[in-house]
Amino acid sequence: MDKLERYRQCICKFLAEQSVGENNEPDMECQLIFDGEHVRVASPLENHYQLLDIGWQGLKRVYNCFIHLDIKDNKIWIQRNLTEVNIAQELVNRGIPPEDIVLGLHPPYKRPYTGYGVPSATVLSHSSQRSV
Amino acid sequence: MDKLERYRQCICKFLAEQSVGENNEPDMECQLIFDGEHVRVASPLENHYQLLDIGWQGLKRVYNCFIHLDIKDNKIWIQRNLTEVNIAQELVNRGIPPEDIVLGLHPPYKRPYTGYGVPSATVLSHSSQRSV
Repeated sequence: MDKLERYRQCICKFLAEQSVGENNEPDMECQLIFDGEHVRVASPLENHYQLLDIGWQGLKRVYNCFIHLDIKDNKIWIQRNLTEVNIAQELVNRGIPPEDIVLGLHPPYKRPYTGYGVPSATVLSHSSQRSV
Repeated sequence: MDKLERYRQCICKFLAEQSVGENNEPDMECQLIFDGEHVRVASPLENHYQLLDIGWQGLKRVYNCFIHLDIKDNKIWIQRNLTEVNIAQELVNRGIPPEDIVLGLHPPYKRPYTGYGVPSATVLSHSSQRSV
């Protein structure tokens, strides 16, 4: 199987597992958002994956994206994690090499010292543009 | 053209317009997330669309979803809007009937009095489940 397709399937399976749970509140939902097919001119290699709680708990609005992963330039970026799961370690356990995981939650200067990957030069030049 | 396909195209065009702008910061990007193709068992009619700023401004992490729209049960839901644009009015101007727009940002009890749409019984029964 193609490496990126394997990464996509790994992410989708992981997020589907994380989203399983009981939700008995009538105006709440857990959304699993996969943007895995679009090819854009400025960033042809980007895929986006999110898990979020959204809705109303009585009179309180809830909008909470608790996991966000991207595939950019052949690497998996961890962009948000409000869970207790060590997502990078979890991905490594599932066969993703550490150098293909970028800890987006760490500032760029720290990433070379995390034991995980760093963005390639291609991504750095992309990220200075709007990605549409 | 199929009504939902027209709604999808309208949303994508609107979000693409909203995302246009200058971004000269090397570690920032504006992501346009379209989950428009997936069909899931529990919620076959849901599509998700987001616009978010993500990255680092120096030592400050930025993660800001400023627009989120859904298509659920043949209606467009406005789930998040941190812009000054009146998105509901903008969609009406583009030919979407008000009764097909649900103001998710208003609590459920208020929606019948907004002049816009309300969820159908189908969505209410879906929203009590996890949407995977």
